[in-house]
Amino acid sequence: MSHLPQVMLILALIVAASKAAGHLSTRFGQPAVFGEILAGLILGPSLLDILRWPIFAASPGAVGAHPDLAGIVQDLAGIGVILLMFVAGMETDLKEMRRVGKVAFWAALGGALLPLGSGAAAAHLYGYGWGEGFFMGAVLTATSVSISAQTLMELGSLRSKEGSTILGAAVIDDVMGIIVLSIVVALVGGGALAPGAGDAAGAGSGAGAGGLKILWICLAMTLFFVLAWMLGRRVLERLTEGVARLKVSEPVMAFVVVVAFLYAWAAEYLGGVAAITGSYMAGVLFARTSFKERIERGVHPLTYSFFVPVFLINIGLRADIKQLGGHLWLTLFILVVAVLGKVVGCGAAAFLSGFRYREALRVGVGMISRGEVGLIVAGYGLAHGIIRNDIFSVMVLMVLVTTMITPVWLRYVFPRVAEKPAPGVYESVAHLEREHPLENRD
Amino acid sequence: MSHLPQVMLILALIVAASKAAGHLSTRFGQPAVFGEILAGLILGPSLLDILRWPIFAASPGAVGAHPDLAGIVQDLAGIGVILLMFVAGMETDLKEMRRVGKVAFWAALGGALLPLGSGAAAAHLYGYGWGEGFFMGAVLTATSVSISAQTLMELGSLRSKEGSTILGAAVIDDVMGIIVLSIVVALVGGGALAPGAGDAAGAGSGAGAGGLKILWICLAMTLFFVLAWMLGRRVLERLTEGVARLKVSEPVMAFVVVVAFLYAWAAEYLGGVAAITGSYMAGVLFARTSFKERIERGVHPLTYSFFVPVFLINIGLRADIKQLGGHLWLTLFILVVAVLGKVVGCGAAAFLSGFRYREALRVGVGMISRGEVGLIVAGYGLAHGIIRNDIFSVMVLMVLVTTMITPVWLRYVFPRVAEKPAPGVYESVAHLEREHPLENRD
Repeated sequence: MSHLPQVMLILALIVAASKAAGHLSTRFGQPAVFGEILAGLILGPSLLDILRWPIFAASPGAVGAHPDLAGIVQDLAGIGVILLMFVAGMETDLKEMRRVGKVAFWAALGGALLPLGSGAAAAHLYGYGWGEGFFMGAVLTATSVSISAQTLMELGSLRSKEGSTILGAAVIDDVMGIIVLSIVVALVGGGALAPGAGDAAGAGSGAGAGGLKILWICLAMTLFFVLAWMLGRRVLERLTEGVARLKVSEPVMAFVVVVAFLYAWAAEYLGGVAAITGSYMAGVLFARTSFKERIERGVHPLTYSFFVPVFLINIGLRADIKQLGGHLWLTLFILVVAVLGKVVGCGAAAFLSGFRYREALRVGVGMISRGEVGLIVAGYGLAHGIIRNDIFSVMVLMVLVTTMITPVWLRYVFPRVAEKPAPGVYESVAHLEREHPLENRD
Repeated sequence: MSHLPQVMLILALIVAASKAAGHLSTRFGQPAVFGEILAGLILGPSLLDILRWPIFAASPGAVGAHPDLAGIVQDLAGIGVILLMFVAGMETDLKEMRRVGKVAFWAALGGALLPLGSGAAAAHLYGYGWGEGFFMGAVLTATSVSISAQTLMELGSLRSKEGSTILGAAVIDDVMGIIVLSIVVALVGGGALAPGAGDAAGAGSGAGAGGLKILWICLAMTLFFVLAWMLGRRVLERLTEGVARLKVSEPVMAFVVVVAFLYAWAAEYLGGVAAITGSYMAGVLFARTSFKERIERGVHPLTYSFFVPVFLINIGLRADIKQLGGHLWLTLFILVVAVLGKVVGCGAAAFLSGFRYREALRVGVGMISRGEVGLIVAGYGLAHGIIRNDIFSVMVLMVLVTTMITPVWLRYVFPRVAEKPAPGVYESVAHLEREHPLENRD
């Protein structure tokens, strides 16, 4: 028979484990996000390895191959992070973000240059060549903001001054990261690294072709952002109103799904930036329409009961801590560089741009978490012989540890529930706050 | 890079096409469901074959294999039909269903025996052996109620006397279908056909082992239904109340997802019936809790803006009309047998059980549509040499045509919006009704 039953079982287990772990995590005063990622680690190959349990095998005598459960879980996780960032976009306070725009820019720049330079220097100190070193530094540049965004939403601080700075800096960091990576790859290794737009410029790897390619990438990015923004500002309200009159079920929500997914696709395929940057923009733009609350009410329930849990658990499902033994010192070294590179790089830049010490620290901590982009770059380096397996393993561990540090650290540097949480989603956090209004505050 | 952007693009196109086609369909006085399935046929290999468009290929120079887009779409479609049947379960009027229970039983029996017998006779008349004939008849027995359920919800008639009979008969039909299939397979071909429970009873194919296996299947089914029902009746309300107090986002919705998916898995893996029967039961049971409206508000938006469109479009994406040429007369013959087998078999049984002519016709029409179960059985027969490729193609076309006939015919035999449509989902249909209150009624 088809593998639908197995898909149902694994998804039920994932959602149940995620919520149970999230609840336990809040009991221990930690953000739910932390517990959910930890639950994924426990379910994954590091410990229980549930995907290989016999119950998930194709049943004997059945028609069809062994189900590719890992693949479907990963695809759902991908949809999950797209929706998570769409919600973060809807939650964004655009006025506040404009106010902190300059700080966000400098924080992003500091948080890109310091990890790049110190990563390269650290690798060089450890005995690697400068080429390898700069590549490792480049892997350390790209912040993955989804975990911070989720944690800040949970803490009710996404719309704060620091929350807005973090989200703004993350978008700018995405752009800068791609440019930095393109430059490093053009200098260090051949071939096309950046997706879509970059490839279109030709596959030559000489310095001239490299420069042309970087120029092309910048142009594609600019075009994407300008077009996406203008389309959103000019016609989204009227389009949504038109769609709302269609004689089908849930027309507005369907339109939201279409636009968010198209923006995610266009961001990566046409603009060369991350897909989540696209859906984040779609969220920001829909939040400016008169349909904002209706959309929030529609998106939240299944996003937070299904897609986001799958995304969070999937992080751990794909990691195997057992394979990360050895290289203890290099790992610790790179970890310190990765964490301090963002905390100091973003923090100092924010501080110098006028933020107070505590505010600057919050921005720095919110930018620690690395994610998929770093892993993709590391995978590229591995495939093209720029780095070896040992460094790749170290990078995987770096992504995992920074992902798990971030929610816990954010929880300690941010005041809890500084503002009204969003309707519906955070009802239980608000409930927690009513019960213990002062404990656990810093 | 990962294939996430391509996944986003195909899903955006699917949702957009589905809603546009659904709207057009209602403009022509047809149920939206019909247009959405037709849109899938147009997008599929029969005409546009979008999944093979170059834009969905892995980008040149990218890390990673060509994305298995068809697989992810199909998995999402599977989740979609599970959620659709959960919603249908929540919409079900259990009191009304109890009242029509006896009629539903006889309708299911008539609708199983007539297609089985007439299918076998037709195949025999056409020159096939009785073994092959009974196997073809068995393929014709299993009703797939999801399309009817969706159409009835759209028409606002799911809770009517006939709607309740159709849903009840479909559940009984599912049970009967599995038993009929097991008997035919035990008699005609060796090997294990029924999943899970059947296999556990041993793989022997002799008449004795076959009888034992059929007994085992019936036992497993009974156990599943009794346990699932008792668990749901006794503890669901209190469990949901407990879960609602968890300090995580969307605890109730997460619990709903977990229970619906677990029931779907258990139905097929433990009980041997279809997964959608499991999620349908979960819906019926949650509808009895005090959380009913909250759950409906949470499930509807993304289910109807994302999952159900993917399910409906996917039907067409998997069909290739071009490969179904030839065998025109056999196809027409089988089609007539398939349609009349259900209309007459279920309809006459309902009529004889006390329904009026028009009511009985509605029940019969609602049971026409065949689906996945028929195709899986046909695929089994093909793999085991019981039927050949020509009959398999005819069966695929039969499933497709019955799926497309059903919404249109239901639309003509049912009065439109006989009752208040469900909150939220059918707002646009209700809106249509307010604008044209009398036209298009039969």
